[in-house]
Amino acid sequence: MTQFPFNISATDGAARTGVLKTTRGDIATPAFMPVGTAATVKAMTPDMVHSTGADIVLGNTYHLMLRPGAERIAKLGGLHEFMRWDKPILTDSGGFQVMSLSGLRKLTEEGVKFQSHIDGSQHMLSPERSMEIQNLLGSDIVMALDECTPFPATPDQTKKSMEMSMRWAERSKAAFGSPSRSNLFGIVQGGTHHDLRKASAEHLISVGYDGYAVGGLAVGEGQEIMFDVLDGTVPHLPTDRPRYLMGVGKPDDLVGAVARGIDMFDCVLPTRSGRNGQAFTRRGTINLRNARHADDPRPLDEESSCPATRDYSRAYLHHLVKSKEILASILLTWSNLAYYQDLMGSMRLAIANDAFSEFSLKFNELQFSGDIGPLN
Amino acid sequence: MTQFPFNISATDGAARTGVLKTTRGDIATPAFMPVGTAATVKAMTPDMVHSTGADIVLGNTYHLMLRPGAERIAKLGGLHEFMRWDKPILTDSGGFQVMSLSGLRKLTEEGVKFQSHIDGSQHMLSPERSMEIQNLLGSDIVMALDECTPFPATPDQTKKSMEMSMRWAERSKAAFGSPSRSNLFGIVQGGTHHDLRKASAEHLISVGYDGYAVGGLAVGEGQEIMFDVLDGTVPHLPTDRPRYLMGVGKPDDLVGAVARGIDMFDCVLPTRSGRNGQAFTRRGTINLRNARHADDPRPLDEESSCPATRDYSRAYLHHLVKSKEILASILLTWSNLAYYQDLMGSMRLAIANDAFSEFSLKFNELQFSGDIGPLN
Repeated sequence: MTQFPFNISATDGAARTGVLKTTRGDIATPAFMPVGTAATVKAMTPDMVHSTGADIVLGNTYHLMLRPGAERIAKLGGLHEFMRWDKPILTDSGGFQVMSLSGLRKLTEEGVKFQSHIDGSQHMLSPERSMEIQNLLGSDIVMALDECTPFPATPDQTKKSMEMSMRWAERSKAAFGSPSRSNLFGIVQGGTHHDLRKASAEHLISVGYDGYAVGGLAVGEGQEIMFDVLDGTVPHLPTDRPRYLMGVGKPDDLVGAVARGIDMFDCVLPTRSGRNGQAFTRRGTINLRNARHADDPRPLDEESSCPATRDYSRAYLHHLVKSKEILASILLTWSNLAYYQDLMGSMRLAIANDAFSEFSLKFNELQFSGDIGPLN
Repeated sequence: MTQFPFNISATDGAARTGVLKTTRGDIATPAFMPVGTAATVKAMTPDMVHSTGADIVLGNTYHLMLRPGAERIAKLGGLHEFMRWDKPILTDSGGFQVMSLSGLRKLTEEGVKFQSHIDGSQHMLSPERSMEIQNLLGSDIVMALDECTPFPATPDQTKKSMEMSMRWAERSKAAFGSPSRSNLFGIVQGGTHHDLRKASAEHLISVGYDGYAVGGLAVGEGQEIMFDVLDGTVPHLPTDRPRYLMGVGKPDDLVGAVARGIDMFDCVLPTRSGRNGQAFTRRGTINLRNARHADDPRPLDEESSCPATRDYSRAYLHHLVKSKEILASILLTWSNLAYYQDLMGSMRLAIANDAFSEFSLKFNELQFSGDIGPLN
């Protein structure tokens, strides 16, 4: 296994900034990865995603294995070629989506048998098949297959689930082999229990992965518990390898997790919210459906470098949302992704300047002030 | 009334090419105007529309008067500022859409009373109100209010309808006044009857307009009858002013109408079809829903300068269409608009080179050959 170089250039408390080098390009960390579920970041062209400053996107193994199929994508030259994204791609293992198919799936030690939500066809997702699919897709960062522990769960359930995830992680590593263009991340499980999280982290480290993810969070436990779990988990992870908090989160989740030493994130929030009329900005979230924006000539943020954020009035965005125009989804998704990338860039700069605490204070002040900016 | 200069640089048979100069920029003719119904060309950013080479877009008075409202758009700086399109805009009169509201509208000499399809509110569209709205929008080319004669209709119905359209055209001109930044087009009606079309054209010319539209076509009469009506109408229009065939059409409709002396077109076909998985190309139309595209690595047209047409495989477009991804609408709309603009550019060049007949032959050969291009 050839590890991608991960160079940490500065730290500030537990927060760190650096660069993860891959064969398809550098990823500046802390990094936010837009979610490209079905080989497209919804409502975006690849150029738009690129323009926001994203270094890497995420692809969903579950969706892609069902449609258009991993073998088909491989024949067409791989996922990068298929979706016209030439920078790094991280693929998830498919586990999270499959586990969500309650009633339609059967979990055993071997893996998960499930029915396609598209055509009802039968499939089997095992650690070995997940590795095979992610390899067919041409993923740069491959995730081990894990069981996403239900929330809430008893300590015993959580322990058993975590232990199976550890066995699956070992099988994932064995099946992954040692490709030169790809890295494999293990996933720490253990619910909200510090002792289980620690045991999971130590087990993964003893096996050895290229990066370490914290899984099983952002499933309804709330920010306070999530941060508590990070406090009990991150100190047990190697300092010299990237740490990825899966499926998180809101802007203030990201700031709090970076403060706790997380390097990578993914979340559907900026894209999904964009399609629902919600804009994330420096000054907080703005619901463009609200009638108070109907006559507002101000852009979402006059200082943004993103055309969607800077060039269109809130009145126009309100009109597009009310009229259910596709352009509403395009502009708000674009703007939200740009905001998320700007936020990550600001955090990287703050850490480099040893000023992350000041950054956090100012971030919270502006984000929760309720003031959405001066009238033009 | 200050007429925009219209300089015809070449003719070839009845076909002509030239430039209509407006205060917001030049329009190369023959021109195709993408339809921006609700202050957006559906699924496009203004930059994408611009990149296809469009010199002008169309806005719908009916939709804009109801939402967000013409007075509101005026307060926000006009339609160009509102939708971030700084090149010319032609607005229709609202008549066509209002007439389509069967049951919800009442037609009198004064105008049309109707109920909003959005909130049921009562409105009145008269020639005077249509001019007021189009002025509030800041339209560069304003259309007179006409009654769109139902199809089919008896000769007597058609004559009565045309005569009211002529009275409304006079009222439109009186209400339009003489703004320096805008032009008013009259609309020839008269159904499929050459004598009525001739009378309508002569009446409009006697009043005097800046351009002349042919209305009431593309309502189900078929291409043969449409061309026959053009043969009986265009010869009665002034040679020195632009001629606009409203709501047309398919690529071969455009070629046949240009051959008959038409200078301007608008149609929802490239945008609506793009949202329905259909691509217009040099080699004919391609239905991307069809399973035969699932493994096809070819782009829609490898020689196009439009990224959507040139850079994505048909397999990917098929996948996006099947997955109902917004990006399918974006890419196919973009590609279709680019094809329409390329077609207009090819016609302008052919006319300038006195080679329009050869162009037409080759166009038909490629368009209807059933061969959608060599495999890469």
